[in-house]
Amino acid sequence: MRPEGAQDKGEDESKSRLSGPSMFIGKQGNGIISFGSGQPDLPPPREAISNLKIRSDLRYGLIQGELPLREALAREYPGSTADNFVVTNGASEALDLVFRSIGKGKVLLGKPYYYSYVPILGFAGLEPVFTNLQDGRIDLADFQEKVKGCKAVLINSPSNPTGRIESMKTLKEIEKIARDLRVYIVSDEVYKDLIYERENYMIKGEHVITINSFSKTYCMCGARVGYFWSSDPQVVQRAIEMKTHTSMNTSLVGQDMALNAMSTPKSYVEKQKAIWKTRRDFIYERMRGMGLDLWKPEGAFYVLPKIKHPRRFVLDMYNKHKVITYLGEWFGAPDRVRFSYALDVKEIDEGLRRVEKYLNSR
Amino acid sequence: MRPEGAQDKGEDESKSRLSGPSMFIGKQGNGIISFGSGQPDLPPPREAISNLKIRSDLRYGLIQGELPLREALAREYPGSTADNFVVTNGASEALDLVFRSIGKGKVLLGKPYYYSYVPILGFAGLEPVFTNLQDGRIDLADFQEKVKGCKAVLINSPSNPTGRIESMKTLKEIEKIARDLRVYIVSDEVYKDLIYERENYMIKGEHVITINSFSKTYCMCGARVGYFWSSDPQVVQRAIEMKTHTSMNTSLVGQDMALNAMSTPKSYVEKQKAIWKTRRDFIYERMRGMGLDLWKPEGAFYVLPKIKHPRRFVLDMYNKHKVITYLGEWFGAPDRVRFSYALDVKEIDEGLRRVEKYLNSR
Repeated sequence: MRPEGAQDKGEDESKSRLSGPSMFIGKQGNGIISFGSGQPDLPPPREAISNLKIRSDLRYGLIQGELPLREALAREYPGSTADNFVVTNGASEALDLVFRSIGKGKVLLGKPYYYSYVPILGFAGLEPVFTNLQDGRIDLADFQEKVKGCKAVLINSPSNPTGRIESMKTLKEIEKIARDLRVYIVSDEVYKDLIYERENYMIKGEHVITINSFSKTYCMCGARVGYFWSSDPQVVQRAIEMKTHTSMNTSLVGQDMALNAMSTPKSYVEKQKAIWKTRRDFIYERMRGMGLDLWKPEGAFYVLPKIKHPRRFVLDMYNKHKVITYLGEWFGAPDRVRFSYALDVKEIDEGLRRVEKYLNSR
Repeated sequence: MRPEGAQDKGEDESKSRLSGPSMFIGKQGNGIISFGSGQPDLPPPREAISNLKIRSDLRYGLIQGELPLREALAREYPGSTADNFVVTNGASEALDLVFRSIGKGKVLLGKPYYYSYVPILGFAGLEPVFTNLQDGRIDLADFQEKVKGCKAVLINSPSNPTGRIESMKTLKEIEKIARDLRVYIVSDEVYKDLIYERENYMIKGEHVITINSFSKTYCMCGARVGYFWSSDPQVVQRAIEMKTHTSMNTSLVGQDMALNAMSTPKSYVEKQKAIWKTRRDFIYERMRGMGLDLWKPEGAFYVLPKIKHPRRFVLDMYNKHKVITYLGEWFGAPDRVRFSYALDVKEIDEGLRRVEKYLNSR
């Protein structure tokens, strides 16, 4: 299963079988409407690009990340210092480093889940344990039962693919459980600046690791700059030790872009959020009007409606109606289909017209 | 043990104990002469920096690497196509991906070795098996004996830390052995453009993986752009699958810089090589004049002389004489000390004066 950016294996594959998101990579133009993309379609802020001066000294940087960038991050995380951060090749490497360096054992995560979680845990020799989400959110009773004996829990709020956020009550309860059981909390908050309902609540505590990124907030996925935060010096040190051998410093030019992006006025993020909210409202109401069973997204930019015969739906919509959607099965939701709304309202509208026509005809 | 770019753990450590190359990071100025650095001190080519136009579309790129860059690489590797390459976050990530995705087993490598090899194999759950180098080069008889039952062999010519290159005869013999035994050859050729004696010989064959980088050739270590080449589609595909989840595409801006750097006239590399050769000749003759027992470097920029009481030498040279050197033990050579000559002849001269004075006094 290969998502976003994976190599396309040729035209024929998508005609007959569903191998994973990668089958749709590079499929565009020619009337195709894609609800597939897991990245913003909006441009990065001017600050990240035009104000950038390319450094001519390209010697190795600190493995942990450039100090000015970590200091800027520390100002966004109350009570933190630059020592609490490790800058990585996107949130992906942050997850990979953290899970490779915390030791062996079980990791509890919600289902549906982001498709890279299960392979990342597998590569690190960790065993995934699932708690079925209720209405796209954690069921605390089930969570409490299954967390016993786990090495870590992996939280993703706002969630890809459910679009849901966890309640403050749930997040605080998880903090308490993790503290009591001395379990690591790995909190993937890459959509923290894309919440429609409230401000983000950053989970706190001794064994907390927060995964984050510049990709979604600043529309710079391809620059691959992410980071993690932790107040546990052992977690930070082990990740640095590993990264020293497995990739060394994160791209210095990427870090310069990220630092520049952080000087973007707060209004940039607010304007973006307004665009996403309009799209969210549109797709949610429209799908409800079509009689689809779905959760209202509270963050990120995905909806995950129930669809009958989802495999046939995804294949037919692509092959016969030029609409790209992702099979819920790839995210642990076999009776659903994921739609990203990282495209403009006009396109969403046209795409849903085709979906509606298809659903009515079968 | 943490090399280049690892976080400095404070001033005191280096006064008393030798924890690894990281203890010297950031130590400069104030009369310090460093033979520590594992990277060129020369600037990157103008082409990589001033001709660079920062792209404003920073959406995800192909996991395998941007097509124009892979096509440019294919033109440098006879008989290759863009499909044979995977662009990575430096040679480090290339090694990490390849070893994580070839399965479990033993890996044969020469001793002394580059310090990241042993941890990288360990992280991947592979077991290192060592063949002791003779005069810094592979002893084919011992190699042939120890390769039996191995999953892969790891070749590094020119070598960090020995500065030696393998003979054409040895390289061709290794090709044959690996082919007969169906063992992977992972050939780390990051110093391929820094050979003083002959052109690089690229190992060929079905199960060969060549690790390479833009870091040393174009003096852009901090940009973190490397790659591997393989004609084995399974190796390529498995690495892409893994990278899809562990780091996604390599920095797009870094890849643009690498592509620009490739347009540098061949004379750039030749001019650099002339500078390195002058330094090589100087440090080698000077050390021989001091009566040191060392191998003549044929590539890269390291010498690895025998030094009595190497731990005391490294500590005293730093604490009392402001000269940074690396303990051979970190490279599997406990009776030696590594000197990088990535600094100008005047500094090499001054550093060696201090070394000579110290050695004569004890």
